[in-house]
Amino acid sequence: MASVWNHNINLSIFGESHGPAIGVVLDNLPSGEHIDMNALMSFMARRAPKKNKTSTQRREKDMPQIMSGLYNDKTTGTPLCALIQNTDQHSNDYSNLSKLARPGHADYTGAVRYSGFNDGRGGGHFSGRLTAPLCFAGAVAGQILERRGIYTGAHILEIHGIKDKSFDPVKTSRDEIKQIREKEFPTLDDKQGRLMIKDIEKAGKCLDSVGGIVECISINVPAGIGSPIFEGLENSIASLVFGIPAVKGIEFGVGFNCAKMLGSENNDEFYVDEHGHVVTRSNNHGGILGGISSGMPVTLRVAFKPTPSIAQPQKTVDYSSLTNETIKIKGRHDPCVVPRAVPCVEAAVNIALLSHMLDYPNF
Amino acid sequence: MASVWNHNINLSIFGESHGPAIGVVLDNLPSGEHIDMNALMSFMARRAPKKNKTSTQRREKDMPQIMSGLYNDKTTGTPLCALIQNTDQHSNDYSNLSKLARPGHADYTGAVRYSGFNDGRGGGHFSGRLTAPLCFAGAVAGQILERRGIYTGAHILEIHGIKDKSFDPVKTSRDEIKQIREKEFPTLDDKQGRLMIKDIEKAGKCLDSVGGIVECISINVPAGIGSPIFEGLENSIASLVFGIPAVKGIEFGVGFNCAKMLGSENNDEFYVDEHGHVVTRSNNHGGILGGISSGMPVTLRVAFKPTPSIAQPQKTVDYSSLTNETIKIKGRHDPCVVPRAVPCVEAAVNIALLSHMLDYPNF
Amino acid sequence: MASVWNHNINLSIFGESHGPAIGVVLDNLPSGEHIDMNALMSFMARRAPKKNKTSTQRREKDMPQIMSGLYNDKTTGTPLCALIQNTDQHSNDYSNLSKLARPGHADYTGAVRYSGFNDGRGGGHFSGRLTAPLCFAGAVAGQILERRGIYTGAHILEIHGIKDKSFDPVKTSRDEIKQIREKEFPTLDDKQGRLMIKDIEKAGKCLDSVGGIVECISINVPAGIGSPIFEGLENSIASLVFGIPAVKGIEFGVGFNCAKMLGSENNDEFYVDEHGHVVTRSNNHGGILGGISSGMPVTLRVAFKPTPSIAQPQKTVDYSSLTNETIKIKGRHDPCVVPRAVPCVEAAVNIALLSHMLDYPNF
Amino acid sequence: MASVWNHNINLSIFGESHGPAIGVVLDNLPSGEHIDMNALMSFMARRAPKKNKTSTQRREKDMPQIMSGLYNDKTTGTPLCALIQNTDQHSNDYSNLSKLARPGHADYTGAVRYSGFNDGRGGGHFSGRLTAPLCFAGAVAGQILERRGIYTGAHILEIHGIKDKSFDPVKTSRDEIKQIREKEFPTLDDKQGRLMIKDIEKAGKCLDSVGGIVECISINVPAGIGSPIFEGLENSIASLVFGIPAVKGIEFGVGFNCAKMLGSENNDEFYVDEHGHVVTRSNNHGGILGGISSGMPVTLRVAFKPTPSIAQPQKTVDYSSLTNETIKIKGRHDPCVVPRAVPCVEAAVNIALLSHMLDYPNF
Repeated sequence: MASVWNHNINLSIFGESHGPAIGVVLDNLPSGEHIDMNALMSFMARRAPKKNKTSTQRREKDMPQIMSGLYNDKTTGTPLCALIQNTDQHSNDYSNLSKLARPGHADYTGAVRYSGFNDGRGGGHFSGRLTAPLCFAGAVAGQILERRGIYTGAHILEIHGIKDKSFDPVKTSRDEIKQIREKEFPTLDDKQGRLMIKDIEKAGKCLDSVGGIVECISINVPAGIGSPIFEGLENSIASLVFGIPAVKGIEFGVGFNCAKMLGSENNDEFYVDEHGHVVTRSNNHGGILGGISSGMPVTLRVAFKPTPSIAQPQKTVDYSSLTNETIKIKGRHDPCVVPRAVPCVEAAVNIALLSHMLDYPNF
Repeated sequence: MASVWNHNINLSIFGESHGPAIGVVLDNLPSGEHIDMNALMSFMARRAPKKNKTSTQRREKDMPQIMSGLYNDKTTGTPLCALIQNTDQHSNDYSNLSKLARPGHADYTGAVRYSGFNDGRGGGHFSGRLTAPLCFAGAVAGQILERRGIYTGAHILEIHGIKDKSFDPVKTSRDEIKQIREKEFPTLDDKQGRLMIKDIEKAGKCLDSVGGIVECISINVPAGIGSPIFEGLENSIASLVFGIPAVKGIEFGVGFNCAKMLGSENNDEFYVDEHGHVVTRSNNHGGILGGISSGMPVTLRVAFKPTPSIAQPQKTVDYSSLTNETIKIKGRHDPCVVPRAVPCVEAAVNIALLSHMLDYPNF
Repeated sequence: MASVWNHNINLSIFGESHGPAIGVVLDNLPSGEHIDMNALMSFMARRAPKKNKTSTQRREKDMPQIMSGLYNDKTTGTPLCALIQNTDQHSNDYSNLSKLARPGHADYTGAVRYSGFNDGRGGGHFSGRLTAPLCFAGAVAGQILERRGIYTGAHILEIHGIKDKSFDPVKTSRDEIKQIREKEFPTLDDKQGRLMIKDIEKAGKCLDSVGGIVECISINVPAGIGSPIFEGLENSIASLVFGIPAVKGIEFGVGFNCAKMLGSENNDEFYVDEHGHVVTRSNNHGGILGGISSGMPVTLRVAFKPTPSIAQPQKTVDYSSLTNETIKIKGRHDPCVVPRAVPCVEAAVNIALLSHMLDYPNF
Repeated sequence: MASVWNHNINLSIFGESHGPAIGVVLDNLPSGEHIDMNALMSFMARRAPKKNKTSTQRREKDMPQIMSGLYNDKTTGTPLCALIQNTDQHSNDYSNLSKLARPGHADYTGAVRYSGFNDGRGGGHFSGRLTAPLCFAGAVAGQILERRGIYTGAHILEIHGIKDKSFDPVKTSRDEIKQIREKEFPTLDDKQGRLMIKDIEKAGKCLDSVGGIVECISINVPAGIGSPIFEGLENSIASLVFGIPAVKGIEFGVGFNCAKMLGSENNDEFYVDEHGHVVTRSNNHGGILGGISSGMPVTLRVAFKPTPSIAQPQKTVDYSSLTNETIKIKGRHDPCVVPRAVPCVEAAVNIALLSHMLDYPNF
């Protein structure tokens, strides 16, 4: 299976960038969950191209149409399918790419994998457009989780070396999460956000692109969610997050910084708080111990490479004739995928959390 | 499922630290593959406690006994089960831990997850001992891969801020990989390795522990292995690697550093080499594009937190009585898990690669 | 998962009888397989309501629209999604059923399963209409198999006690299979077929319905396809066939008759034929031994209950008010589902065979 | 995967008839379930060879040893592994079979499937001995179900044409189920049982064997268990039951007889009983509608072919030299597998039911 993820919920994503439609089937959702379509559209709008110069000028309505699984605005429990029509393809933009491997893209690897039969137009099934159905699924999961008090939010932590401040891993509130979602350019420190926007625009003007990091937090996840070894929250979240194109790394809690720490620094001491809950003062463990939630916020960071589509001439190969060539990529491309990736990371985390919540006796 | 991983191969790990045995079932291996038991034991010996002061003094032979799936030293194609007896448990070492949550451990989260019924002795199913069956599985997979020219090696890249040099992501050879496996303390730069050993020993003497990073490389992986979206090599490797206790992050290629780069720096230009192969000059993409191998070495780094078991007194809770307490952990513990984690990372990568190779028409 | 089947291929079926559309996603098909849309439509037409009185007068074009996974009429290898619009619903036909459990239907069990939130109109996701996407998937699989010489055909073996003759389990030819597919009412003995049609029409006139048996055969399946224990051909075929509503039994080879036989009668002796192939003279084993194909034709029979929707008044309950009631089912219904079930059984067998063929080294 | 079954619970069976051991891993059992080892041994004893002449004289203690997953006699929730040593192999009994395909066995198909590398001694992984771990798993599942009032029992319905009476599909009681389990030869009508025993013994004396049917019933299964399409109770039970060697058919409720019925006969009318429960007067549907339990007893019948190992000379092939040969099978074999298959069918049903119960909110 390539585009299927399964843990209690079966998530099957389909579609190509320039085919008739893309979409998703979500099987085994709990029944009777109200889905607010306006809230869902707002979630998906955060993934849509930005009106400023930081993203592609390709415009699509990306209105998901529900084909099944929703009745009187409530989940039926049977498979939920959503379809997103492709309405704004400019296939001829890509016509000169047909046999040239765009550096940093899956053109060459996809052609080898599928013996050249995959639909390469606009990246085909490898296109970033396939994150739209992921966001749909994540938005649905998010609404089900929020009804149980669990809120997930994400922001841009870094763009091309310019850093935002981090979420407080212990005290981040529901209001802070809601606030960050409202922002056109989601950083905690707007001043740093403006520097990032300038940097992205500059990269775009220079026919270049930039990478960055998204930080994500989930609050009010009850303790005891997840399983040991291969079905821990970290495994599940990672296996979904690497489904977003351009992701090159993921870390939980202090992440790679733990390599510089002593155990006495890194261990989060437990205490019983004033409500009688077992909590930790610090949260280096990112809310997960042994794959299972501790009750502390779940925190993670995801690294995104710079958009591989850049308009500069690049050396590459024609993988059909096996000759060395130069490529100049036309078409509309984000000089930075990170702003639009923010809801994608949230979506992946929502799906993982909901899928593990379904193991929970009193869900 | 908790301890089951499945992609073409079904890997089911079982056992608790202080039960009769731990082990693994590998279902759907190719048949007719010769398994060299001596080489397999050598692989597993690299995970065994070191004779120096960098690891626990607990000694176990950890000889895997094959229960099924091997006949005349060749895989039968039917399920391969290996059992490792637990012979050196000192359960009373853990007797005072029964209701106290060791900070950084899964005692509390496991108790919530399993309503207190899990076997908590020595961490039970959450114990680092469960990496022994993972190494067994990875060693078997590795032998099958090496017969096809694919070699995977790993080394300690960093311990508590002390850094080794990195693998050359383009030119690392089979001999270099074989060499690093022979080392008692696998670093590329032995001088840095000695500094690390001293640092680990010092941490041990201070009743503390240290974290670090393992870097791994796989060479000669043919182009076209892996699948898009959720079944990419990155997803599969990550979902296995987070099955190793203490892992807090994973990155591929340049990983988190891509957040500081321009697209023009990060993109690896393709060219046709003197053998007519499509290759790249640099390897920032870590041998994976769109989830699929490019033919370049697959490179990744894994962050390990400091051993949570430290002998210093630590504040914690009794999660039964919900009272604040102090814990002093006795027993034998590695002041750093990283040296013993090196073959575990290799094992995870081997299993992921073999599982995806089985999709390959001419495997 | 409810509506997902997975063995190498991931098959996800979605939709409700009276929603906007039903459909299917097929993930992990081999790439580069030509799909003949005319042949595919012919396959699906065999499932469509018959023009005579043996089936519902509901008319739907049931034209599948390909959303993804097909490019230049060849499979891309990435997920293939087909959508079938629902265009001919008469929801008000069902308006009086809302809280009355139709006997023999899943109204009551579905309502309990989904706490009343499932879309009950026309049976919702439990509707026989959901066999249309199954047929689509089976038709695709069938074309891929036929290119490799494997042909699957089915016929009506029995309707309400009236029997057709059986396929020859050893000698049935490709031409016989092609011939039976062309028939409007697929029986081997047309005289018996006419008796069946009369019986079905009579049942319809009496506001009643009848059950029957479909027999299926697959020829030229190479030896060695399938796996032991839970992934045998029998397990896979059965798990798909029970996905067709109204199926109450399945048997392979001589099936239940083996309960009356001696081992010396039932065992099929092997011999080497004039082409040097290992074959058996008889085929009581139905082409499967130990879950694995023997090279002999795969044979099976599937029992279908009489259509539960009958227009006679029936005693039942209102499962909302928990009162005893009488129901009179309106709407258009087949007095016998068996004729339209014939391609559904073929489809299930095709999917199972293709999925196991993908394990085969030289597929 | 071959020997792995997965639905909420992951069941992995391993071992070969003449290897060191066979066994099973059960992952994702609920935690805290008390397992009575004596009751478990009694369950498994019902599968053991009978002391009379109806079964093989091979004697094995078949004592399962728990390797993990049980602590203080309660399930931990982490993987439960049980091992059964092979202690009574007479491998030389099989020495003359090495290249001759025993008719009705998987020798030839297994050799093709695994390119000759599978362990063929005593059938290897295809041996009926592999039903011992299935029974272990089913006995564990059964104890968990019985604690919730759900009882499953089975009996021999037919041997070589000699018939027992059937379970009452509506009124069968817990006591009747318990009673039938106590019987050395489980028939409802002991007189018919004695005729069957005589017939089996006669077949044995004639160097022949006989087939039969097992009937199974589960009572007190709550309504609402199971899912539509591919995850119905029928699909799950069938996919497990075909994991028992020699099974050639399965039917639910009236099964194949529905092919002779009218809808008005077959439909089970609902009514509200004196306790306010929705029930049906008849139970032709076998307790399952749309894949989901109705609250009525779940009933099914399973057909077993005559033991293929018969001591008469049989024509066959040497599949290595591709020559026609005659085989005379030595060794110890049951002239009828049906008596020992009774608990195997119960086991399969228990596993399916428990796995679907785990979807249930208030399990």
